[in-house]
Amino acid sequence: MAKAKFVYSFGNKEAEGSGSMKELLGGKGAGLAEMTMIGLPVPAGFTITTEVCDLYYKNGKKYPAGLVEEVEKHVKKLEKTTGKKLGDPSDPLLVSVRSGAAVSMPGMMETILNLGLTDKSVEGLAKKTGNKRFALDAYRRFIMMYGSTAMGISREKFDHAFDQIKETVTRKRLKLAASVKVGDTDVNEDELGALISNFKALYKKEIKKDFPQDPIEQLWGAIGAVFGSWMADKAITYRKVEKLVGVKGTAVNIVQMVFGNMGSNSGTGVCFTRDPNTGENKFYGDYLVNAQGEDVVAGIRTPIKLSDFEKHDPKAYKQLCAVRKTLETHYKEMQDLEFTVEEGTLYMLQCRTGKRSPAAAFKIAVDMVTEKLISKETAVSRIKTSDIEGIFYPAIDKSQVQQLKSEFIVNGIDAVPGAACGKVYFSAAKAEEMADLNEKVILVRKETSPEDVGGMHAAQGILTATGGKTSHAAVVARGWGKCCIVGCEKLEIDYAKKMFKANGITVKEGEFITLDGSSGNVYKGELKLVAPKLPESYQTIMKWVDEVRTVKVRTNADTPYDATHARKLGAEGIGLCRTEHMFFDSEERILAIREMIIADNSQNRKKALAKLLPFQTKDFEGIFKAMDGYGVTIRLIDPPLHEFVPHDEAGQKALAKAVGKTFEEVRQRVEQLHEANPMLGHRGCRLTITYPEILEMQVTAIITAACKQTKKGVKVYPEIMIPLVVDAVELALLEKQVRKTADAIIAKQAVKVTYLVGTMIETPRAALLADQIAGHADFFSFGTNDLTQMTLGMSRDDAGKFLPDYIDENKAGVFRLDPFQSLDQAGVGLLIKTGIEKGRSAKPSLKIGICGEHGGDSESVKFCCRAGMNYVSASPFRVPVARLAAAQAAIADKASAGPGVKAVKKTVKKAGPKKEKKATSTAAKKTASPKATTKK
Amino acid sequence: MAKAKFVYSFGNKEAEGSGSMKELLGGKGAGLAEMTMIGLPVPAGFTITTEVCDLYYKNGKKYPAGLVEEVEKHVKKLEKTTGKKLGDPSDPLLVSVRSGAAVSMPGMMETILNLGLTDKSVEGLAKKTGNKRFALDAYRRFIMMYGSTAMGISREKFDHAFDQIKETVTRKRLKLAASVKVGDTDVNEDELGALISNFKALYKKEIKKDFPQDPIEQLWGAIGAVFGSWMADKAITYRKVEKLVGVKGTAVNIVQMVFGNMGSNSGTGVCFTRDPNTGENKFYGDYLVNAQGEDVVAGIRTPIKLSDFEKHDPKAYKQLCAVRKTLETHYKEMQDLEFTVEEGTLYMLQCRTGKRSPAAAFKIAVDMVTEKLISKETAVSRIKTSDIEGIFYPAIDKSQVQQLKSEFIVNGIDAVPGAACGKVYFSAAKAEEMADLNEKVILVRKETSPEDVGGMHAAQGILTATGGKTSHAAVVARGWGKCCIVGCEKLEIDYAKKMFKANGITVKEGEFITLDGSSGNVYKGELKLVAPKLPESYQTIMKWVDEVRTVKVRTNADTPYDATHARKLGAEGIGLCRTEHMFFDSEERILAIREMIIADNSQNRKKALAKLLPFQTKDFEGIFKAMDGYGVTIRLIDPPLHEFVPHDEAGQKALAKAVGKTFEEVRQRVEQLHEANPMLGHRGCRLTITYPEILEMQVTAIITAACKQTKKGVKVYPEIMIPLVVDAVELALLEKQVRKTADAIIAKQAVKVTYLVGTMIETPRAALLADQIAGHADFFSFGTNDLTQMTLGMSRDDAGKFLPDYIDENKAGVFRLDPFQSLDQAGVGLLIKTGIEKGRSAKPSLKIGICGEHGGDSESVKFCCRAGMNYVSASPFRVPVARLAAAQAAIADKASAGPGVKAVKKTVKKAGPKKEKKATSTAAKKTASPKATTKK
Repeated sequence: MAKAKFVYSFGNKEAEGSGSMKELLGGKGAGLAEMTMIGLPVPAGFTITTEVCDLYYKNGKKYPAGLVEEVEKHVKKLEKTTGKKLGDPSDPLLVSVRSGAAVSMPGMMETILNLGLTDKSVEGLAKKTGNKRFALDAYRRFIMMYGSTAMGISREKFDHAFDQIKETVTRKRLKLAASVKVGDTDVNEDELGALISNFKALYKKEIKKDFPQDPIEQLWGAIGAVFGSWMADKAITYRKVEKLVGVKGTAVNIVQMVFGNMGSNSGTGVCFTRDPNTGENKFYGDYLVNAQGEDVVAGIRTPIKLSDFEKHDPKAYKQLCAVRKTLETHYKEMQDLEFTVEEGTLYMLQCRTGKRSPAAAFKIAVDMVTEKLISKETAVSRIKTSDIEGIFYPAIDKSQVQQLKSEFIVNGIDAVPGAACGKVYFSAAKAEEMADLNEKVILVRKETSPEDVGGMHAAQGILTATGGKTSHAAVVARGWGKCCIVGCEKLEIDYAKKMFKANGITVKEGEFITLDGSSGNVYKGELKLVAPKLPESYQTIMKWVDEVRTVKVRTNADTPYDATHARKLGAEGIGLCRTEHMFFDSEERILAIREMIIADNSQNRKKALAKLLPFQTKDFEGIFKAMDGYGVTIRLIDPPLHEFVPHDEAGQKALAKAVGKTFEEVRQRVEQLHEANPMLGHRGCRLTITYPEILEMQVTAIITAACKQTKKGVKVYPEIMIPLVVDAVELALLEKQVRKTADAIIAKQAVKVTYLVGTMIETPRAALLADQIAGHADFFSFGTNDLTQMTLGMSRDDAGKFLPDYIDENKAGVFRLDPFQSLDQAGVGLLIKTGIEKGRSAKPSLKIGICGEHGGDSESVKFCCRAGMNYVSASPFRVPVARLAAAQAAIADKASAGPGVKAVKKTVKKAGPKKEKKATSTAAKKTASPKATTKK
Repeated sequence: MAKAKFVYSFGNKEAEGSGSMKELLGGKGAGLAEMTMIGLPVPAGFTITTEVCDLYYKNGKKYPAGLVEEVEKHVKKLEKTTGKKLGDPSDPLLVSVRSGAAVSMPGMMETILNLGLTDKSVEGLAKKTGNKRFALDAYRRFIMMYGSTAMGISREKFDHAFDQIKETVTRKRLKLAASVKVGDTDVNEDELGALISNFKALYKKEIKKDFPQDPIEQLWGAIGAVFGSWMADKAITYRKVEKLVGVKGTAVNIVQMVFGNMGSNSGTGVCFTRDPNTGENKFYGDYLVNAQGEDVVAGIRTPIKLSDFEKHDPKAYKQLCAVRKTLETHYKEMQDLEFTVEEGTLYMLQCRTGKRSPAAAFKIAVDMVTEKLISKETAVSRIKTSDIEGIFYPAIDKSQVQQLKSEFIVNGIDAVPGAACGKVYFSAAKAEEMADLNEKVILVRKETSPEDVGGMHAAQGILTATGGKTSHAAVVARGWGKCCIVGCEKLEIDYAKKMFKANGITVKEGEFITLDGSSGNVYKGELKLVAPKLPESYQTIMKWVDEVRTVKVRTNADTPYDATHARKLGAEGIGLCRTEHMFFDSEERILAIREMIIADNSQNRKKALAKLLPFQTKDFEGIFKAMDGYGVTIRLIDPPLHEFVPHDEAGQKALAKAVGKTFEEVRQRVEQLHEANPMLGHRGCRLTITYPEILEMQVTAIITAACKQTKKGVKVYPEIMIPLVVDAVELALLEKQVRKTADAIIAKQAVKVTYLVGTMIETPRAALLADQIAGHADFFSFGTNDLTQMTLGMSRDDAGKFLPDYIDENKAGVFRLDPFQSLDQAGVGLLIKTGIEKGRSAKPSLKIGICGEHGGDSESVKFCCRAGMNYVSASPFRVPVARLAAAQAAIADKASAGPGVKAVKKTVKKAGPKKEKKATSTAAKKTASPKATTKK
């Protein structure tokens, strides 16, 4: 094996690296190499690769063999390119040393500037620049940066030494009043000389060694410091918080110094090639006259706008505008730049893809297509999930800096992004009552249950003490796009006293709080929110999205309201309509379902169910109408019956009275319904096996509604879905019952209604035996919530106790992402692929979709597209995210598959329940070996 | 397609069918054909196939086309063979019509004899036999049997008509006193003639038609009656109770009549070729002189023993002995025979494999090998699981007929067979206390928990109101072979009043009850039990079993006591040692584990664990000693922590006091431990991920014990097993921790101990990703209890509510057997095969076993053998069953694979933990398409 190359040089319009080598050279190194190659004015230098950092840590903090030689060779080369020598007492080469990983990491080491200055070379710099004060100032800056940043001496100690000189010498010399601050620039050459002596003495005292007078020794000290910073606590924490995994290490960039602090025709700046807030094609940035980068960070002086920079130094500004144009043309992407002007000459120090607001992301993408810089596919590919989320959800106005600090109470799990603000109430009933009085309400609960749905809907936002991102509260709230924070474990809720405490702060019923669903932060009081406004460019992008994707996007919706809303967000049908939520919609309904549960024989159950029939029929009519022309997949009853009955004595007594039973009978029945593991209990189609009359009522409601709406001219495509199937015999039995009931109604109503009967694939057994099961199903819908729970043996309600450790790469690090949020592709994904393959082997025409929470997760949607599904189904607010992900999957597959795959079409597809096509076979095949979600 | 043949004739030493056609001809028809062919004296006749019955029901109770013609053709043939004609007024052919399915079904239709008698042919019979009374008696019997059995007239009405003649005519004629009973034989010819008239009148009144005088009409009436009886309620119930599925239907046998009631040189009998109770090679049976089969059933006269038959009719007896010899030589199996002697000539009417007691099964099998009738393999193959169970478990003495009837209380689920009798106690503590006073105790609980284990162990038997065959009570009791009845839902237990009620019967604390674990019946009082005594032949068979099998049998044992016991039953190591049961062994231990759970930091947890360390070390030493020379697989902690803490206020207060915490702290911690679905919660290796100190303590205990025992000369082979693994990364982390801890101890103790580290495969994900997981495991052990729960999405604790419907073939009929008892081969089995295949693909040397409850189920063990496992592990009492099943699988595979497979060896294998070999590849391959457990 050839020895790896550890160092890449750039300078003089030549570079060993390039912009595509971000992984190896870090973002900064790659940018410098690329800018050099395309002829931009970049000071010469070289980059030590991220691989060296990786080897350094793998090898017990030792550099790989050959590194020292390679670096010193590149130093020589740099000296040749620049015509200067490190430590040269007449004209020394000075360099900056900066870290730079593949992804931007603010937690990393800061820059060391002016490296190469020694007691001797500082004289050379003074001579060469004719500016002794500048040279001395550069030297004292270097000692301070090197001493603190590289060697770990407290910055305060240097500041203290500087202050001492200022106070005891400069103030006296200038005779300044006590009230006047002594500025850095007030210090003169002599005083700087004295300060340098003091700094060196401080260095020796702290480090027990003289400040190094050999520039090579300085260089290795700085390099070591950069690598050391990779494993500093703050860097590790940053990577953990940002979920950055698999980043190898940091590179080290050694670049010839240029000086922005050489007078008024010098300066330094930071800019974006377009406005990162609005996306407008407008040059945007700050410039600081006569300053080094360090001064910008220190915030000592206020920078000027680019328009003022143009006025101040039109020549330099013109150079910068040329660079802007070159870079945008080259990268075809908005860039974030750092530059320095040294005596009228522009030098580029950094370029990278600029961060932007969600609105700007859409605007820039669309504009660049208009400008013919990029294709529509590229535009679509650049939009991130968070961009879509960002433009939909209201946000806390971040200009309230003070309030964000002072009003912070506690942090929970960011279940649904956005922000909400309202008065705290601790019961769903009270929340609903207050909302009816036009109060803005936040519902605060230990946990929520289906009975709380009314109050949850009435609330602006929901806060719970327990549960994860897929807890009841989170799932329901997500469906509505309603801000929700869950698992806020520090929250001590006292229902009796109607208050909660957290971090020593008490909030009582009726007091305002503000939730930031994007961060999980909870604040006291009523913070100002910024409302979402959909930019026009959003509509343009989504049009392109729909043109390019091959997989349909449906929605999970249980009410006509949700259905209508989801249609507006682009849903092409309903992939999951949960019938049981309808039972909680009114007192009358919940009483009827409870009566059914308490009934002791089939006849009484039928009587109770008959009461529900008109309600369900009406609900389905509304949903069919809202989904006119689109398929509606309706799942028969799924949750265990104990979820519908009251568990408290008062509730049971009331129920007993209402249904004409004794309290004891009701209590016993409820007790009898108790289950050790309800997830794996008497639920799903097991209920309809035991109580066929429930199936009969539900199918009657569905088909009756379908007939009625068909008669009114609505195009109705009902798809009846049987949950929790484990076997073909079971499904065959239920399919027969469904068809018998449905066909009888259709015959009686004398109207043509075509319906499908299909099944959820949500037990591992169903996926394993999908070939047998397919024989009795028109369609499969993967219920990945339950499938994940069973395949992993993890209850999502209980996983909060251990799953965080499983995701944390510094603990177990088993999963890269929460498998309840983002599909476990290696495990559950394998079952899905098996299920699809086996299902289609038995029935090639089988329609296949997904209706778990994963249908709204970008990575999971892409997996589903590649696995060959016909559609994904997401909660209404996630529909745009799913559409985008499906489009991005199609684009990526097209790119890797070459011609023959559907390109962006100019025509808008006709709406209607046409057969969802399979993803192209090329795409489907690709998934044979997808990247595992699990880290190995 | 050629038309199926519906009728098979036999007679005159020729038969169209044979003994191998039981499925098609039924047991009786096949036996008659075979006996005819081998030259035994069988009356001629023909058999209508079971297929006709099947078609009859599939075709809306219509006979298949061509049947009538075929039957009538065979009637002609029979007339030709016998030289008699149906209905012939001078010498009529008479036949019997009998049902006969492939398996014996006592619930089916009885026999109709003497068919063919009419008003005319009865005269011919009288003339031919010269015995008018005999002929008339035969006719009245026929009318009665045909009228009642075929036409459904109440038998009592015929009896009543008969009694009337007897009382009004015969009694008067004979002038019998009122106290003397009139016998059937007292009735004379005239009276029989009158009786026949009365019977015919009764028939006409009931059926509205004359009694048929056409023998062919009679024949079709009888055939229809036989087919009709197949779907009679009692037959359906019988099949359900006996779990007979897939039996097509019944055959109909039409056989020429022979008469045992033609005088003292005639008679009828039933016999076994060997003693069915003891297995002795001794002719065994009953003979009734001058009688028809019907009389035996009616129990009118007492039969004589065969020895008396020999004395009574040595010539006929000699014929019978010859038949006995011929049949045993032919079938090489003990036979159950029915025969009739007609005027000194023997006729065989039935032969089938004879039912026998468990002890007889062993004795007969061994004797037949000694007699060179069968091979050892055949002997082994003939032993049934129930034979082994039967000789181990005590049983209720069935001679207590009256008590079994009068003392019956209630029926529950037969969880562990055997019988037990003792005084009722309702708490484990009280049960233990009374057992210490030498009382025999039955523990009666709503359900049991790990805290009850002491009381369960002390009890003779266990009775619970809830739970299924794999509930805590059942699993624990099975491990001890202790009689246990669970899920006795009618049991209303009142802990407060210390009593239970069921079916209106009240039993108080201290009163005796008797449990029949084999039937699930509970009786009042102290019934007499019969103790088990292992016959010598058992030992012989088990020696052969061990010689022939290729798969090892280990045991699930948690204590030195269990381990020793299992060794005696033939266990070759421990496949599952559950460490957590040890925690409940004393107050001190449970307090330490609770202290560990309540601890709020790692240090305090370690302090509490340190208290447990010496206990666990001692336990492991005992187990290693008991398993000297064999592998011991020890599973690290598995159950969720809430199983160890008290859930009642009193218990929590006591705990708080003991560990120096406040009650509130303890209460909160317990509440915090609560889980929605504990099965899928914070348990298994997830606990050791969160609390590595538990792993450290347990590994320290295991390896320290191993070192100590090794020093004492014991051969120790510890295998440390990590439960509930889902991913290779997770296992790698824990494997590393185990090895680090273990190696440090071994190094310190300076003794050579070789240990293995492996994993349970009990989540679907682990099976799916077994190739990756195998990289970090020396062995796999399939935990099929949990694997079944997760694959099917069924909690075994909750399945009682719906699983019965899933198993009932008249309801959902999804599973043939309870998947928690007998492995779901289609679903879970597929995952197991995937796991084995993938595991061995990555590591061919991987040792693989099973340690779920299925390891003690015969069918499941056979599946595991064929899937290529190295061993199965069963609870101690199931070890012999598992050994037998493994041997039978090897024999069956050898039979189908031909030479090259290991034959029975003469040498006894050396004990020791030699590497368990894989089942031969031929056998392993065979499992590629095993029969599905699931019915399709």
